[in-house]
Amino acid sequence: MPTVVIVGAGFGGLRAARALRRAPVQVVLLDRNNYHLFQPLLYQVATAGLEPEEIAKPTRSILRGQKNFDFRLVAVTRVDFAAKRLETSAGPIAYDYLVLAPGGETNFFGLDSMQRHGLGLKDIPDAITIRNHVLTCFEQAMLDLDAEQRRTLLTFIVVGGGPTGVEMAGALSELIRLVLVKDYPRLNIKDVRILLLEATDRLLPALPERLREAAGKTLWRKYVEVRFGATVADYDGRQARLKSGEVIPARTVIWAAGVRAAPLNATLGLPTARQGRIPVEPTLQVAGHPEVFIIGDAAYREQEGEPLPMVAPVAIQMGHSVASNIKRHLRGRPLEAFRYRDQGTLATIGRNAAVANVYGLKLSGFPAWVMWLVIHIIQLIGFRNKLFVLINWAWDYFFYERAARLITRD
Amino acid sequence: MPTVVIVGAGFGGLRAARALRRAPVQVVLLDRNNYHLFQPLLYQVATAGLEPEEIAKPTRSILRGQKNFDFRLVAVTRVDFAAKRLETSAGPIAYDYLVLAPGGETNFFGLDSMQRHGLGLKDIPDAITIRNHVLTCFEQAMLDLDAEQRRTLLTFIVVGGGPTGVEMAGALSELIRLVLVKDYPRLNIKDVRILLLEATDRLLPALPERLREAAGKTLWRKYVEVRFGATVADYDGRQARLKSGEVIPARTVIWAAGVRAAPLNATLGLPTARQGRIPVEPTLQVAGHPEVFIIGDAAYREQEGEPLPMVAPVAIQMGHSVASNIKRHLRGRPLEAFRYRDQGTLATIGRNAAVANVYGLKLSGFPAWVMWLVIHIIQLIGFRNKLFVLINWAWDYFFYERAARLITRD
Repeated sequence: MPTVVIVGAGFGGLRAARALRRAPVQVVLLDRNNYHLFQPLLYQVATAGLEPEEIAKPTRSILRGQKNFDFRLVAVTRVDFAAKRLETSAGPIAYDYLVLAPGGETNFFGLDSMQRHGLGLKDIPDAITIRNHVLTCFEQAMLDLDAEQRRTLLTFIVVGGGPTGVEMAGALSELIRLVLVKDYPRLNIKDVRILLLEATDRLLPALPERLREAAGKTLWRKYVEVRFGATVADYDGRQARLKSGEVIPARTVIWAAGVRAAPLNATLGLPTARQGRIPVEPTLQVAGHPEVFIIGDAAYREQEGEPLPMVAPVAIQMGHSVASNIKRHLRGRPLEAFRYRDQGTLATIGRNAAVANVYGLKLSGFPAWVMWLVIHIIQLIGFRNKLFVLINWAWDYFFYERAARLITRD
Repeated sequence: MPTVVIVGAGFGGLRAARALRRAPVQVVLLDRNNYHLFQPLLYQVATAGLEPEEIAKPTRSILRGQKNFDFRLVAVTRVDFAAKRLETSAGPIAYDYLVLAPGGETNFFGLDSMQRHGLGLKDIPDAITIRNHVLTCFEQAMLDLDAEQRRTLLTFIVVGGGPTGVEMAGALSELIRLVLVKDYPRLNIKDVRILLLEATDRLLPALPERLREAAGKTLWRKYVEVRFGATVADYDGRQARLKSGEVIPARTVIWAAGVRAAPLNATLGLPTARQGRIPVEPTLQVAGHPEVFIIGDAAYREQEGEPLPMVAPVAIQMGHSVASNIKRHLRGRPLEAFRYRDQGTLATIGRNAAVANVYGLKLSGFPAWVMWLVIHIIQLIGFRNKLFVLINWAWDYFFYERAARLITRD
C-alpha cells in the first residue's frame, strides 16, 4: 500500500488525513505538537477567556477510529525529493506521496527589536505568554508608585488591523474594563490605554466599507485608540517608536501585523514567493515533483490575480482537494485544479459586537455576533470542547468573568 | 487601623484572610503566584484528567468582596522582626501582625540526582511537566525501534506510599490502561510498568490495617507493582538504583516521598525542627515575637506526642485559629491554644476505588470513592470550577477519556 506522509496537523493536514480514510493508502501524519489547534480562538486564550485545552485536541484522539492512520511526534529537518524521504528528529521516513502543510509563523518583517520584545500569537505558548504578561503588568502597576511607570505598564499596543489585531484589541479592552476593574479596586481606569496601530488607512481590508466603519466605531466605543498610517520603527520593551517619530511608552506590544510560511519552506531548495510561500501548480503539486503537494499557508497560489489569503478556509479546502487528487492519481485519472470558494469574513469585537460578510450576507452588531458564535462552536472539534467553550462564553457573558486569569510561570 | 500581613495564599493564608474580613484591620496578602491552588487534585492535572485552570482560582477574585483586603504579587526575601517589616521583590512592607504561611516544597532529602532528574509535584508547573513528560515518553516509545529502549520509556516509578504516591500511581495506571491504549493501537501493554516504591513496610500509614490492605489490593488489580522496603539511592534520568543494589531502567521517576517547609523558613533566623519547620507556641505565635504567627506546613507543633502532619486540614484550622487570636489580641483578651481536630484520611485509587477513614467511618471501594468525590467537589472554590471538574470526571467515567492530553511545550 503506498504511504502518504502529511507534514503538519493544522487545518489542511488534518483535513487531508481524514479525507484519505477510505483510500487504499497508509497515512502517516507528522507534527511537532501532539495536538490540533483551533487557531481562530487563540486570542481568547491570550485574554484569559478560554483554557488552552478547550481549543486544542490531541491528534491521535481526533483520528482514533481511522484504520489507515498513524501519527508521529517529530520535527522535519529536511526533505530529499530525489530519494522520496524525509529526515526527521527521529530518523528518516520514506513516502510515496508527500503533503507539506507546515503552516505559518509570525512575520516580524525583519524587525529584530520587535522579534525580541514584541509578543506574537501563533501557538498555545504564545497565548499563555500574552496572558501571563498582561496580568503581570496589572500586578506590577499595583506595586509601582510612580505614575509614569504605572501608565507605561498599563499601555497595551496591538499592531495590525486585520481580524487578529481587531479581535485581540476588542477582547483585551473587555478583559480590562469589564473584569480586571473588579479585581483591582485601586486601579484608575484612566491610566489604561489600548492602541491599535494599522499601517494602511483601513481596518479589516477584506470587508466592505460599511462593515469596516462599524468595526471602527465599535472599537472606539470600547476605548481602543485606532491609529491609521502608523508603523512601528523600533521597540525596546519600554517604548515604541513610530516611523512618524512619535514615541509611545508601553510595556506590551502584541504583534498581529503579519504571517509568513513556516521555516521548513526555506529548507526545501524550492523557489519561494512572497512571505516565503512556495508557488504550486493548479493541482497543488510542486513543479517537477508530481508526488509532492504543498497546501495551506506554506503554498502560494493566485486566483483572479490575487494571492490566496493565509487563512483556515483555504487550508481546509486545499486539504480536501489534495486528498481527492491523490485518490485520482492512484486510479490513474487526471488531477483536478484547485479552486478556492471564498465563504466570507467574520470578526468579533466583543460582547454583542461583530462584523460578518458571509455568503453575500453583510451583518454587523448582535446578529453578526450570534453568527460568529454559532460558526465557531460548530467548527470546534469534539463535543466536550464545544460544551466547555459554550459554558465559558455564557459565564463571561452573564457574569462578566474570565475564567483563566492565572499567571502560570515556570 | 493595624495591618495584618499574610505571607502565602495557600489553604492556611487564605482562610486567615477570610476570617479577618470583619475585623478592624487592614489585611495584606502576599504570594508569588496570583492564584490559590487546590493541591489535593494536582495529581489529576499531572495525569491529564483536569485542566490547571479548574483547580486554581485567582486570589483577587476569591477575596473580591472583602473591603479590608489587598493582594500583592511579590516574593518575600527577608523578615526584619525588630523593625516589623518585610523585604520583598517590590520593596519593604510594614506590618503590625504577621502571619507566615509560606507552605511546603518537595523534599528530596539531599538526593541531588533525584532533584535534577526526578519529578516533584507541588505546583502547577510541576504537574504540567509530569503530564508533558509522560505523554512524550509514549510518543517516543512509538518511534523507538529498540525493545529495551521502549520498555525504559514505558516504565514509570512513583516513589512514596503516602496519599500522593498512591493516588498518583492509581491515576497513572488508569490514564495508560483505559485511555492511552486507545490512542496507541500499536502499543504492547506488556511493555508498560508502573512501580510504587515505599521505604517502610506499609502504604498510607495513617489508615487502619484493613484499609491499607484494600488499597494495596486495588493497586495490584491496576497492575501497579508495589515494593516495600525499597529506597532509591541514585537516579540519572535513565535508570534508578535502589539501596538493595537493584537497578531499574526507567525514564520517569515521580517523587512523592516527602515535603519540607518552604525555603523562606531558613531565612528567618529562627530555630527549626524536622523538615525545616519552625516550632511555635501553642497559640501559633513565634517565641519572643507575639505579633508573629506561623501556620501550615511551615509551622511545627506536636499533639499527643506526634508532630502535626503537613496537610491541608491542619493549615485551614490553623488559619482559622490565628485569625481568632489576632481578634482576641486586638480586644486585649488572652489568646487560645490551637488544637487540631483530625477529620480523617481519604485517598482515591481510581474509578470506583478509594479508602476513607473519616469521622470514625472506615470505608473502602465504591462508597469511599463517592465520599471522596463529594468532599472534593464541596471543597473546590468557585461554582464554575466545581462544574467543570464534575463534567470532566463524568466524561472520564463514562467515556474513558482524559481531556487534557496536550504536550504544551515552550
